[in-house]
Amino acid sequence: MLPLQTLMDRDGVQKTALGILIEEVLGAGIQEIGVVVCPGDQGAYRAAGGAPGTRLHFLEQSEPRGYGHAVACARDFTGRDPFLLLVCDHLYVSRSVKPCAQQLVEVARAEGCSVSAVQATHESKLPYYGAVGGRLADARPGLYKIDTVIEKPTPTEAEQKLVVPGLRAGHYLCFFGLHVLTAGAMALLTDLVDAAAPDQRVTLSAALSALAGCERYLACELEGRRFDVGAKYGLLMAQFALALEGEDRDEVLAGLVELLALRRP
Amino acid sequence: MLPLQTLMDRDGVQKTALGILIEEVLGAGIQEIGVVVCPGDQGAYRAAGGAPGTRLHFLEQSEPRGYGHAVACARDFTGRDPFLLLVCDHLYVSRSVKPCAQQLVEVARAEGCSVSAVQATHESKLPYYGAVGGRLADARPGLYKIDTVIEKPTPTEAEQKLVVPGLRAGHYLCFFGLHVLTAGAMALLTDLVDAAAPDQRVTLSAALSALAGCERYLACELEGRRFDVGAKYGLLMAQFALALEGEDRDEVLAGLVELLALRRP
Repeated sequence: MLPLQTLMDRDGVQKTALGILIEEVLGAGIQEIGVVVCPGDQGAYRAAGGAPGTRLHFLEQSEPRGYGHAVACARDFTGRDPFLLLVCDHLYVSRSVKPCAQQLVEVARAEGCSVSAVQATHESKLPYYGAVGGRLADARPGLYKIDTVIEKPTPTEAEQKLVVPGLRAGHYLCFFGLHVLTAGAMALLTDLVDAAAPDQRVTLSAALSALAGCERYLACELEGRRFDVGAKYGLLMAQFALALEGEDRDEVLAGLVELLALRRP
Repeated sequence: MLPLQTLMDRDGVQKTALGILIEEVLGAGIQEIGVVVCPGDQGAYRAAGGAPGTRLHFLEQSEPRGYGHAVACARDFTGRDPFLLLVCDHLYVSRSVKPCAQQLVEVARAEGCSVSAVQATHESKLPYYGAVGGRLADARPGLYKIDTVIEKPTPTEAEQKLVVPGLRAGHYLCFFGLHVLTAGAMALLTDLVDAAAPDQRVTLSAALSALAGCERYLACELEGRRFDVGAKYGLLMAQFALALEGEDRDEVLAGLVELLALRRP
């Protein structure tokens, strides 16, 4: 249900979370969109997907075998092409004029390799994310060459394997939920999925860890923040962040201040 | 879709708007709940309605003939009993330990007549609401005897017919979206609906206006606020208000302050 939730976008127009994500993708210059769904969810998603004419291709995940398996369900859709990967229960709020997806696609196009968006994240939140280790790439700030990928590392693992020079103490580069991946990355993922037992969950991080060993693979900090809409108060914070960056900023801030003022001590 | 939106309730538990409303109703001591729906929406509403065992009766409105007609679809369900009426796209956030619906039901039970919850509302918002005129009932503050009901009055109509002694200048008593109504009120409504042409919209306010002429009918200001979830940023403000009154108050305020602080000037 999360992608079907309604929000106001930056321009104060009511949209579903899925509709906002699709605009993010289109804004990055991408025209063919594959949506991995549970069988039967196509109708609701198509209705929530916004503008008619948007080319949505529905790809069914017939068994709930985890995120890596879901992504692998798109193997025929992505084919030999690099692709942008997003999760549908996140929203990305850019702090620049370029949407987050566009920022990432531009880096991937310039570098000609797989790039994952990352966000410096406090170690207390490591249990929720995949995290990467590496070092600054070239002289460009915010771009890293990835050596290591670990899904939901413990603080000890992170301290031993994922310390990145230049980050604040106790902070690690965690996935932002946005990736541009090559066909090689998809091949590594589908090999893992095909080799796994039916009850075994394959993480995307496992494939990305293998990717770091055989292709150039970068991480990039973007000008923006991700919001996990499925987290407690994630939708509230995403909506507030959208409103703060948008044209209804003053109206929303005034409403919040009024609510605070009306509370009895 | 609005009643199916997900929010965190005061206790920080994820629920649909409908689930929160049903708890509001159950908390007022009401056990049989009629939900007027478009044909076909029963399944989604039942799934969103929360705890199994809740006695939800679905009443179909087969044509979109407006709010008064929708309420009249419940005539067989309410029968000879007084009933609590809520709209499903509003949320009520109490500022006392008693939920808004419970406050209203207690007043109606004590007074033994129809009572509509009202909120002093600035005249700029008159186009969105039904409004009432009247005078303070007895010596009890916040309780009014209703003389006049007008749906979406103009400022001029309001000034001529709806001024209530004791309110701030430019403020009127507008419906809150919560009513306790007698079987007599339902009879007046169904008479209007049955007499109307098929393309004619009957407002609830028309029936309540007739009610004020033939039964004792009160308005009551409650300790709390209503939020129109369908209004722009209504869901955001409702969620913020719930969080401010609940146990995650500090966490949510800290998150909002962090978002404000992270913005670049």
